[in-house]
This record gives sequence, structure tokens and C-alpha cells, in this order.
Amino acid sequence: MKKLAREVAVIGIGQTKFGEHWDLSFRELGIQAGIKAILDAGIDSKRIDALFIGNMSAGQFLGQEHIASMIAEEVGLTSNQIPATRVEAADASGALAFRQGLLDIASGLHEVVVVGGAEKMSDVTSDIAAGFIAAGADQAWEALFGATLPALYAIMARRHMKEYGTTMEQLAAVSVKNHRHGKMNPFAQYQSEISLETVLKAPRVAEPLGLFDCAPISDGAAALVLCEMELAKEICPCPVRIAGTGQGSDALAITNRPSITEMRATKKASERAYERAGITPKEVDVAEVHDSFSIGEIMAIEDLGFFEKGDGGPATERNDTTFGGVIPVNTSGGLKARGHPLGATGIAQINEIVLQLRRKAEGRQVKDARVGLAHSVGGTGGTSVVHILEVV
Amino acid sequence: MKKLAREVAVIGIGQTKFGEHWDLSFRELGIQAGIKAILDAGIDSKRIDALFIGNMSAGQFLGQEHIASMIAEEVGLTSNQIPATRVEAADASGALAFRQGLLDIASGLHEVVVVGGAEKMSDVTSDIAAGFIAAGADQAWEALFGATLPALYAIMARRHMKEYGTTMEQLAAVSVKNHRHGKMNPFAQYQSEISLETVLKAPRVAEPLGLFDCAPISDGAAALVLCEMELAKEICPCPVRIAGTGQGSDALAITNRPSITEMRATKKASERAYERAGITPKEVDVAEVHDSFSIGEIMAIEDLGFFEKGDGGPATERNDTTFGGVIPVNTSGGLKARGHPLGATGIAQINEIVLQLRRKAEGRQVKDARVGLAHSVGGTGGTSVVHILEVV
Repeated sequence: MKKLAREVAVIGIGQTKFGEHWDLSFRELGIQAGIKAILDAGIDSKRIDALFIGNMSAGQFLGQEHIASMIAEEVGLTSNQIPATRVEAADASGALAFRQGLLDIASGLHEVVVVGGAEKMSDVTSDIAAGFIAAGADQAWEALFGATLPALYAIMARRHMKEYGTTMEQLAAVSVKNHRHGKMNPFAQYQSEISLETVLKAPRVAEPLGLFDCAPISDGAAALVLCEMELAKEICPCPVRIAGTGQGSDALAITNRPSITEMRATKKASERAYERAGITPKEVDVAEVHDSFSIGEIMAIEDLGFFEKGDGGPATERNDTTFGGVIPVNTSGGLKARGHPLGATGIAQINEIVLQLRRKAEGRQVKDARVGLAHSVGGTGGTSVVHILEVV
Repeated sequence: MKKLAREVAVIGIGQTKFGEHWDLSFRELGIQAGIKAILDAGIDSKRIDALFIGNMSAGQFLGQEHIASMIAEEVGLTSNQIPATRVEAADASGALAFRQGLLDIASGLHEVVVVGGAEKMSDVTSDIAAGFIAAGADQAWEALFGATLPALYAIMARRHMKEYGTTMEQLAAVSVKNHRHGKMNPFAQYQSEISLETVLKAPRVAEPLGLFDCAPISDGAAALVLCEMELAKEICPCPVRIAGTGQGSDALAITNRPSITEMRATKKASERAYERAGITPKEVDVAEVHDSFSIGEIMAIEDLGFFEKGDGGPATERNDTTFGGVIPVNTSGGLKARGHPLGATGIAQINEIVLQLRRKAEGRQVKDARVGLAHSVGGTGGTSVVHILEVV
């Protein structure tokens, strides 16, 4: 595998609190996150060469496309007409914006790039939002017939239970853990613990998935500043190296996949990222994975190679995925507790990994974290993106 | 200005006929264009490493986001889960997909990439389409108050007429020329000439712009195969070099710009592209520019440096922008006659330039064309993208 032409580092992070921001517009969320990241990087905004924004569906939610230029203007970056590009792959959009920023610098085109992700979901009612989110599944073969994202993940969960004996308690254990983690994250939408009983007794959204198996509807934005590595070492006290990138695609409709208890896109994306970083799953110290539904995290920790297929549920019950376990997963609270503003999620995950590798995660710090992984899924697995970051 | 780490060439082109395709779905349009480009490149599809798709708004038009993976699947490219990414900046989306494909290869990540653009607009009525298209302008400050794209371009046209004396006849001359060119393009939506009188007497859409000053609503798709230059020379008899890329952004709302008779985004994008290619506007032999409205072409040929500010209208009247003139512009028929399926347009423009540089444009061939330029605008100029291509 050929190396990228240049190495790239993360030198700044920022995000808004995730939640229901009735008082903030999409623009304002973008500004907050962008400015925080630029201030964190400690650079003059004149040094910024380009902007990439991940956003799933401002077109449906707000009737506004073309949002990258809009955010560039709001953050004050149009003075030099810098390039601003939106990238979209359902709720993997943020992760892909990050990847495009990486390639932009690696290609030699630019030195400093801001990548961000944002979504404003609470301006419509939740039933309407559910329809918009289903646009990340296959409209013609799934959504048109009433299949929502929870329904599709419920089918995957049922099959996982049948094939591997995964239990309702194991699914619930994912959400209980992520709420416990989220309690320590000041930017999380939910900063409160929930009990196993609460999760199990909650109303069902789509059997076997209940209310607490599903990530919430959220508003929020997150941003990162990327920089060519040599320059990063000069201007940043703690650059974090982007060691590996991997992306994979699969059929949008789950019926067109050979298996629905694994995500081929995730397996291939992680394979590519591990190879590029020159590491194995065992070397990952901390991971943020895509738990839009509890079954999603169980499948992810298997498909990423942290646990054997079928052992995702038991591993979660054994506390292997929390602090002191085999690999702490979703220390930020994950999509479930941190919140899931679709386009922002992939960037927020990398925010958390960078914080961990800087050893600045305070109460939720993973001891001696040197290698972190972020995993983002679009829809039910039509896209998967994996990035590996390392302490320099 | 630093060179890109690797050079990239176009080795395959393909597009559907543009028009109202009642009998073809978005998927089918994507397949047609993609397969044509792959066949034209003469490569085994197994060699394709990644896919980038430009699309403005399948979310609004079809309730379908996440379309890059969908197209990858339909074209049969998910067997190895290749990365598939959608890029969006209103009707500059195709041009930006092309740019991401270029950076992907230049960075060293991949060797062969397919870039495409597609839009299916005719499944809704034209008033609804007009609202969706207005999502490329500023929703909160323009579209919400009823401003459509024709209305905003009409304001720019009025100002251009006042400042530079541009006439209705000069605006009309753009459309007359582009229809004359389109007549020679078998993929054009309109392959018929129109008279100056027809244009001038047509019903007004937004004064001073009439029906024939506006590009139509279209369905269509276009695709290109990009390849690392050394490999391209081995496998392709006529690779076309991507010599320059430039992108610029500006405020979405025209009220937030210092001037509305020029596009700062275009000026900056072309400046960047010329510098990267090491050429001046005089060296360009053929250009495809963004004439979503007739005034758009007049501003473009000024902002790109082909003519002095204010001389765009007179130059068109002098036949400087047709065959045998100073620089033939929109030999394909442009957005006006070829059609304007938003996300596909930026790719179709490059299709035309490659055809010209291969000297395969038949009746509309520009003699001895060695350098071509493609210029794409998002909305009213919030984004502009310029690419320069050269015979190897």
C-alpha cells in the first residue's frame, strides 16, 4: 500500500453542546464549533486554506443546500474566498468531510484546513425527522414501504440474536455504559446514568429495540483544524497524527447484502485503515464507534476486530468496553448519550479521540492512550469510515 | 504555489442525453453514464479504486440522500466495497466531485477514480423544482422571501445593464449562440436553433430575463474516469492532463457581496487555476462556462479574464465567443441548450472539454484546441470552481 504523499495532523478541536438548541440556528451552531476549533489551534484564521463540512440533510431539514459556503461566510472565512465543500454520506458525512480534508492536505494543495460537521434536526417534529433520516436508507426499496432506520436496525438485531444468542440485556448494557460515560462529558446531550431496568422496560420503538436503544434527535456542530505534519510540529504543542484512513461502501438496502449481522463496509474500511496505519486492532487503546442503535455498537466492536463475531454482546456485559476493560468504547457517551446530530457525529468522535490522545479527557481519560480509532456509519451500513489517530 | 504531489489525467468520458427522462430513474441515469465512461476508458472495472458523485439535491427531489453508495452499487462497484462519496455545492456539485477525485489520486491514496454527477429533476412540477433550486441561494435571507434563482440573476442583470450598458439583445445573443452550438451536440436537451426575436419576444420569467435566458429543468448524468498520470500514459492512447484546479466561495446572499456585477468566487477560483496551470486566460482555446442564465455567461467570460469587465455583452454580439472567434464558449450548447441537471453539469462540461482536446468533437470541433477550461457556479456565486485541462 502506497503511503500518502504528506502526513497530516489534527491541531485544533471544538464542538457545541449537543442537544435541542431551540435558540440557535444552523449557522450559529456552525460558528460556535468552528471558532472554538480555530481558537484551540491557536492560529490566525488567515492561515486557513479551505473548509470541508459534513452534513446529511440541511436540504430536507431546512430547505438549505450549499451550506459549506454559508458556514465559511458565517465563520468569517470568505474574505479570501477560500474553498468550501460539503460532503455527504448520511450520518457518516462528518467522517467523510474529515477524510476529504486529510486528502486535500496530503495532495499538496493546502497546508491548513478546517473540517466540520453540523446538523439542525429539532426544527421539525420527530416523525418528520424519522422520514428524513430514512433517506439514508434505500428510499425506493425500504423507506417507501415504511421502513425507518430503527426498523431496519431491529431486523439486524433480531438476526444477531438468532445467530449468536445476543440478548436484550446485552443490547441494554451498551446504552447503560454509554450513558455512564456520557455523564462525564460536558458536551453530551444526556449527562445522566440509566439503569438496565429502565432500558429494558422502556417503550419499544421497533422490537427488539426500545427507546433507550436508539440515539436521540439532536442539534449540534463540531470542528477540527488539520495541518500538514511538519508545519503542525512547528506551531502546535501536541499535534495528533492521522495514521490511517479507510472507507467502504455497500448496498443501501439491507436485503441486497449477503449478511445483516455484520457490516461489510465496516470490515473493509477498518481493514484499509489498519493496513495504512500499520497496526492491528489489539493496538487500539480507545475507540469511538457508531452506536446509532445499541445493536450497531455490538456489530461494530466485532467488525472492527476488537472481539470475535458474536462476542460483542457478552463483551459488553463483561465490562470489556468500559474503563479498565479490554478497550474503552465510546468514552464520550457515544451517539446514544452524547447525541447524534447526523453530520456532526463523525467530527465529534474525532474530537473525543484527540482529547484522549492529548490526555485531556479528565474524568473519562483512558490511561496511557496512544492510539485511537473513530468509526462512523452512514444509514444501515451503505457507508463506513474508519480513522486511526496516534500520539506523535 | 506548491505543485500537487502527483499528476492526474482524464482517461474516460460518458454521459446520458440530457432532457426529460420520464422512463429512467436516478439510478438508471447514473448507471448509463458510469458504464459509458468506464467503457470509454477501456479499463476493467476492478481497477476502479473509488467513486465521487456530485449531486445537488436528491434529498429534496427524491427523498434519497446517501446516493454515492447507491450509484456504486448500481454500477456494480460494491463488490470490493470501494469508497463512494457525494459532494455538494448546489449546481457546482459535479465540478467539486471532479476536484475531490483529483485530490484523491494526487494524495497517493488511489490510482483510478470514477467521478460522476447526476440529477433527476422532472419527477416534481417546475414550481416545486424552482423552490428546491432556490435552496442553493440563501434560504433565510433570500428564498424565504420568495426570491428564486431567476429573480436573483435578474437583479444582477439589471445592475450589469445599468453599470455597463449591457442590452437585452446581448443577453439574447448568448442563448442564440448556445442553441446554435447545442444543435451539433447529440447529448443536448435542445438541438434546435432559436432566433434573436424568439428570445426577445418570449414571456419574461423575471425581468429582464425571459424564458430563453434561463437554462431548463433537466434529468441527466455524466461521468469521467481519472487516473494517475504515469499509469494513464501506459493504458490510455489520449490522456488529458488536469493542469489546474481552483475553487472559491462567497456569501450565499447577493446582498452580502460588495458587487453583484462580478463573481468574486469566480475571479478567485480562476486566478488559482491559472496560477496552478501556469497560463493566462489568453492561452485558453475553448471554454465551458456556467450559463444557468444568459447574464451568467456574460459575467463569467469577464470574470474569467477572457474579456474586459463590461465587454461580455458586446463580445458575444461580435461573435467572439463562437467558432472562429476569440474563444469559443460553450461549444456543447452550455447549460442553456445542453440542459442543466444540476449535479451533472460540472461533469458534462469536462466531458466536452476532453472531447475537444481529443479532437473528437466532430462538427463542433475547435481547431487545434490544446487548452480547455471548465467553469461551474453554485447558486448565484456562493461557490465557483474552475478546472484547466491540457493535451498531454
